[in-house]
Amino acid sequence: MTTLPPHLASVPLPKAYRLLNHGPTVLVSARHEGRAGVMTAAWACALDLVPARLTVVISKASATRRLLEASGRFAVQVPCAAQLQMAYALGTSSLATDADKLAHCGAQLFDLPEAQGAPLVQGCAAWLACRLLPEPHNQQAYDLFIGEVEAAWADTRAFAGGHWRFEHADPAWRSLHYVAGGRFYATGEALDVPGVSLEE
Amino acid sequence: MTTLPPHLASVPLPKAYRLLNHGPTVLVSARHEGRAGVMTAAWACALDLVPARLTVVISKASATRRLLEASGRFAVQVPCAAQLQMAYALGTSSLATDADKLAHCGAQLFDLPEAQGAPLVQGCAAWLACRLLPEPHNQQAYDLFIGEVEAAWADTRAFAGGHWRFEHADPAWRSLHYVAGGRFYATGEALDVPGVSLEE
Repeated sequence: MTTLPPHLASVPLPKAYRLLNHGPTVLVSARHEGRAGVMTAAWACALDLVPARLTVVISKASATRRLLEASGRFAVQVPCAAQLQMAYALGTSSLATDADKLAHCGAQLFDLPEAQGAPLVQGCAAWLACRLLPEPHNQQAYDLFIGEVEAAWADTRAFAGGHWRFEHADPAWRSLHYVAGGRFYATGEALDVPGVSLEE
Repeated sequence: MTTLPPHLASVPLPKAYRLLNHGPTVLVSARHEGRAGVMTAAWACALDLVPARLTVVISKASATRRLLEASGRFAVQVPCAAQLQMAYALGTSSLATDADKLAHCGAQLFDLPEAQGAPLVQGCAAWLACRLLPEPHNQQAYDLFIGEVEAAWADTRAFAGGHWRFEHADPAWRSLHYVAGGRFYATGEALDVPGVSLEE
């Protein structure tokens, strides 16, 4: 069993969709032959509960896309408000024109064996390690990639017991929702439907 | 040219992605042979800018799915915090077991010619009228539907000039981001990357 860094906890796969269900902007990372790439993607979405699957749209111009296609592995992670500038920079620069993109953006990586080579970005609120489910038509026609989530983790300061705990955490842990032109919205107030018990 | 209800404005198609970019939970509506269905979907996502396209995951148990498949048309709309209970109810009841689902959930419909028969739900913050792009493998294997956006509108109190204006509007206009167990998060604080001008 892997020893996790402080504050990291595994998220059971049937609950991994909850990490993406509120529609945050994510970081997509992949590594091939020692070269690691990370890019920001606003167009990521849960696709299934069991097996846990997700979709992400990745432009043909992306260097990270080529690493993902070559390795068949990638990670999707949920950055937080403290990482606003990094998330923007990772979405507006490219490994293709800046070999030191990750350092210039302030992204530091770590590894967990279950991610099977996909690098993980430090300081995020949650991580989903995925195996690419090859769908060549979707990838070519729509830039649409499907991943099967094989492991997931969260920082327990932001997500614990199967639920986001934004309302109890420092606002720096809120996830980010990109619109355009450098404008993100943070995740806001919790709104509970009256009479419904928050399930486990 | 259609006369729009008060406060409604067309959204140019190349900017329609901004209605979904921040990851809100949406309502999906369709009509066939006079029968209208509306369901809530947390798994909806922008797919392309031009042509404007989106994805939405719709379970095989959904009655609205059958209306969508039969008519080839649907609408995706962005409900707001004022519609919290309606959005939850539309996601937890079915036309298959309650022929009066829409009335019981409090959903009132209206039509615009450009929606080509897809009914629109009153009181939402934005609407995207879509033509189904048939992809039988995605629909069968993943419950994944692709729509091409043919027209889009927003309530100008929530979205105007190509941008959400949550920070200027009543909090009841904030969009909703579902997690699980009756827990939504409202869209929160605007976070702007320093030095980046909000583009038009």
